[in-house]
Amino acid sequence: MLVSLPSFARVVAELSKLPGVGSKTAARLAFHLLRTTDRDVEALAEALLEMKRKVGFCRRCFHIAEEELCRTCRDPARDSSRLCVVQEPQDLLAIERSHAYRGLYHVLHGALSPLDGIGPDDLKIPQLLQRLQEEQIEEVLLATNFTVEGEATALYLAGLCKQQGVIVTRLAHGIPSGSDLEYIDAGTVQQAVNGRREL
Amino acid sequence: MLVSLPSFARVVAELSKLPGVGSKTAARLAFHLLRTTDRDVEALAEALLEMKRKVGFCRRCFHIAEEELCRTCRDPARDSSRLCVVQEPQDLLAIERSHAYRGLYHVLHGALSPLDGIGPDDLKIPQLLQRLQEEQIEEVLLATNFTVEGEATALYLAGLCKQQGVIVTRLAHGIPSGSDLEYIDAGTVQQAVNGRREL
Repeated sequence: MLVSLPSFARVVAELSKLPGVGSKTAARLAFHLLRTTDRDVEALAEALLEMKRKVGFCRRCFHIAEEELCRTCRDPARDSSRLCVVQEPQDLLAIERSHAYRGLYHVLHGALSPLDGIGPDDLKIPQLLQRLQEEQIEEVLLATNFTVEGEATALYLAGLCKQQGVIVTRLAHGIPSGSDLEYIDAGTVQQAVNGRREL
Repeated sequence: MLVSLPSFARVVAELSKLPGVGSKTAARLAFHLLRTTDRDVEALAEALLEMKRKVGFCRRCFHIAEEELCRTCRDPARDSSRLCVVQEPQDLLAIERSHAYRGLYHVLHGALSPLDGIGPDDLKIPQLLQRLQEEQIEEVLLATNFTVEGEATALYLAGLCKQQGVIVTRLAHGIPSGSDLEYIDAGTVQQAVNGRREL
């Protein structure tokens, strides 16, 4: 950036730290913010600070929460015998949007990735095992991503959970809704054939 | 968004106001900010507020400036007989990066667009005409974008500037560096042929 204004350059530098925001996008956002009203920029800055001050993680499931426990953990209507394990809070939200699950959650905050030096103790896996011992859990639904890391994490957790005597399930693998078989990758089709169901 | 946390939802709402940021991207950024340190988020919020407090527009050319006049206008080494007219501060920076121009600038802050109700008085056009009368300007280089609005603005300004007796020039239209003729649109090739130069 050729901009010699320190305060402008600082905003560009800070915005560039965000994921998916390069210096060009950061400059475009900064120019946009220069053009908006003072109130809009103050609202954004205050919202950021307030969120950072108020939002933490649920003591039990590690989803984001403004109180000690998140809304799901505080909801007595939830089926506390089922636990769905996800990588990130966003994944929890994706499952909630499906309205197909009424149990509790456990957010790992990542997946196992030995190449990046991420082992079980870097995730909320010890806390998961503790919950399996303390809570009356009958089923653990593994809903980590269908990537190499997510699959490896599911496999690892399946072994640990079975040792605790709970039923371990995994999200179904198959053809997504609304899709054309022609364009689906062979691995997914293979999984869909192998996992075929009788109608 | 299913997130019921008001402070999180507020950050998503504020970030969604940025150009090119939809609610999904906003949520991804907000989750990222939740995971970073307090100091990083404070640095971003403070940078935004400081920029908004300090940065305004140059009284003379309307480029962004922390003082009354921008750095270009304050630079005595600049050729004050030439004036380059651009739509936005970003465009000024693009020309500065080329190191091909040493004159002064005038930032219009937009282009004429009758369909959007943007006429000459919504841009810094009256201020441009005033500068042409008050300053000793010999050449006006029209560097508005090569879009319908930018071209229309250049045409409109060319007429006004010629009335003031200054030489009016326009950025050359042609084939960009490093490009393959095969893939250039016909309009650009046409302009390049019509504007061919003797070597």
